[in-house]
Amino acid sequence: METSSQLDPVALRKIRRTNCNSPLKQVVIAGGTHGNERNGVYLAKYFMKHPKLVQRPSFKTVTILTNPAAVKANLRYVEEDINRCFYQKDLMQPSNSNLERKRASVLDAQIGPKSGSVPKTDFLFDLHNTTAATGVALMVPYDDKFAIEIGAYLTSLDPSVRIILWSNVPDWPMFASVGRSGMTFEVGPASWGCIAPAEFIQSKRLLLSALDYIEAHNQRIKQSNTSTLIKKKIEVFQNVHYVKYPRDENGDLIGMIHPKLQWQDWKELKDGQPIFAMFDGSNDTLFDSSKYEPGAIYPFFINEAAYYEKDIAFMLARKVTVDVNMTPLQSKI
Amino acid sequence: METSSQLDPVALRKIRRTNCNSPLKQVVIAGGTHGNERNGVYLAKYFMKHPKLVQRPSFKTVTILTNPAAVKANLRYVEEDINRCFYQKDLMQPSNSNLERKRASVLDAQIGPKSGSVPKTDFLFDLHNTTAATGVALMVPYDDKFAIEIGAYLTSLDPSVRIILWSNVPDWPMFASVGRSGMTFEVGPASWGCIAPAEFIQSKRLLLSALDYIEAHNQRIKQSNTSTLIKKKIEVFQNVHYVKYPRDENGDLIGMIHPKLQWQDWKELKDGQPIFAMFDGSNDTLFDSSKYEPGAIYPFFINEAAYYEKDIAFMLARKVTVDVNMTPLQSKI
Repeated sequence: METSSQLDPVALRKIRRTNCNSPLKQVVIAGGTHGNERNGVYLAKYFMKHPKLVQRPSFKTVTILTNPAAVKANLRYVEEDINRCFYQKDLMQPSNSNLERKRASVLDAQIGPKSGSVPKTDFLFDLHNTTAATGVALMVPYDDKFAIEIGAYLTSLDPSVRIILWSNVPDWPMFASVGRSGMTFEVGPASWGCIAPAEFIQSKRLLLSALDYIEAHNQRIKQSNTSTLIKKKIEVFQNVHYVKYPRDENGDLIGMIHPKLQWQDWKELKDGQPIFAMFDGSNDTLFDSSKYEPGAIYPFFINEAAYYEKDIAFMLARKVTVDVNMTPLQSKI
Repeated sequence: METSSQLDPVALRKIRRTNCNSPLKQVVIAGGTHGNERNGVYLAKYFMKHPKLVQRPSFKTVTILTNPAAVKANLRYVEEDINRCFYQKDLMQPSNSNLERKRASVLDAQIGPKSGSVPKTDFLFDLHNTTAATGVALMVPYDDKFAIEIGAYLTSLDPSVRIILWSNVPDWPMFASVGRSGMTFEVGPASWGCIAPAEFIQSKRLLLSALDYIEAHNQRIKQSNTSTLIKKKIEVFQNVHYVKYPRDENGDLIGMIHPKLQWQDWKELKDGQPIFAMFDGSNDTLFDSSKYEPGAIYPFFINEAAYYEKDIAFMLARKVTVDVNMTPLQSKI
């Protein structure tokens, strides 16, 4: 018999996704995956102090700090970005090469494993912040119908919430991929090291509502009730590309996000629109839509602090429509 | 004969300020005093690559990175905040106890010394960013008439520019205090690690205009011309107090800047206005003006990332009027 850990990530995910028709038993809320993203850190700490708030009758909720050392230092990470340490292949050959790799192994054992068809955690909310004006942006695996369903519920409560599908690749290194199902719960703009207050209140409300939805979902499954499912079509974003910064021959920045593009996440980017302003005030760089397939295109993660080192000035998305089947639930937001 | 280095800081400053009636010979523009305040870092790097831009006929301009190790690490500081390492007494008994103390000694020798009545640098622009929505906020020593004069000129060009007087204490530990005259050129909001583009363009323009003003000032002095001086009264802010975060008995945060106070820097804070929202959604903390002397009071540095560790939620200022004598100059902004 082939054990699930020998399966490739795509085949394994197929099994995991099928299991989503069974009730969820454990939900994890994680803050501090990046230690300087303080909305997530303080929301997780708050839930840890008030665990009853996140309990629901039919499942257990565990709140954790993903990278306490990075939280303590108020840094994105100490040695390596832990949110890039969760490839299935890396977790199956655990390396203790640095603080974050060690912590990733511990977490995988504690709430996963990612290589298991039935991990301990059925849903993982991983709380992040960005310096870009994304609002609440739920980043979900493209093949994770249940995560999209939760996203659709939150969008119905708060139309400012957006859903973004992770790229269609065989595996992802993000922490949220350790659960049977999960999402990276991005909120911006928030500066490194700061709590963005309105976004904190909004995130808290949305997370508690998401738990209510999971409870309703569990109850419906226990009653073997599929007749009440509501079929919906929703619009989501699909990440398709990214744009690099203007640099000189030594790799030094010679320009920056154009003031007219700053804070314009999710607003359609039109051909000829300025995207970069040069430090020397010379000609702006204009968006050249002919580089891409025709159709409306939307920038996001504009001026995200952590992406300077990855040389990503902003990302580009398309709108796509997906079908979801939703458990009916009186909204309580 | 008493050497100037034996003088107390206040007496020494009196001598230095008198020297301001002689022409300026050297101006220093410093970026990266805090390594993660990227507007200043990239503006300084840009001037270092294009030195002609900051040269003027009658004086020399030197652009430097204050803390290159912190810039490289994209951190406020490596071991200690260097912008607290420039007390005259500390510089006169140099300590090599950490990276920043060592660097402070090097800088003091290179462009000061602070203990000299005639330091090598006549004016020091120290470029900073804040995560608070301060706009351009020029922080100047309360007794530095020439710095206030430059601020007044910049305010006349761009009415969004504000001048804030440093507290009346015997000495300050800030880098800008090493020059004969100087200012901390604060710009916000900008997230740690990010370039705020509109603010970058504005800062560049203002700095070049400030250099033009210094040139006009030098020319006027060389012509021994005081008859053309324009007498003005300007309104500036005086820092008077700061407000701490709400915390539990363990010192953990239990609340945050109120969403209605976020981004409201420099807007009069009225009695009863909410200043903190609690994580648990319980009663907001309201501003109690009876704790302070009567009169209008203005919050600033609201939600500055670096001030969480100093337990400063925001600062409070009063408006005061000061007299300035200005060299006439055709504005060129």
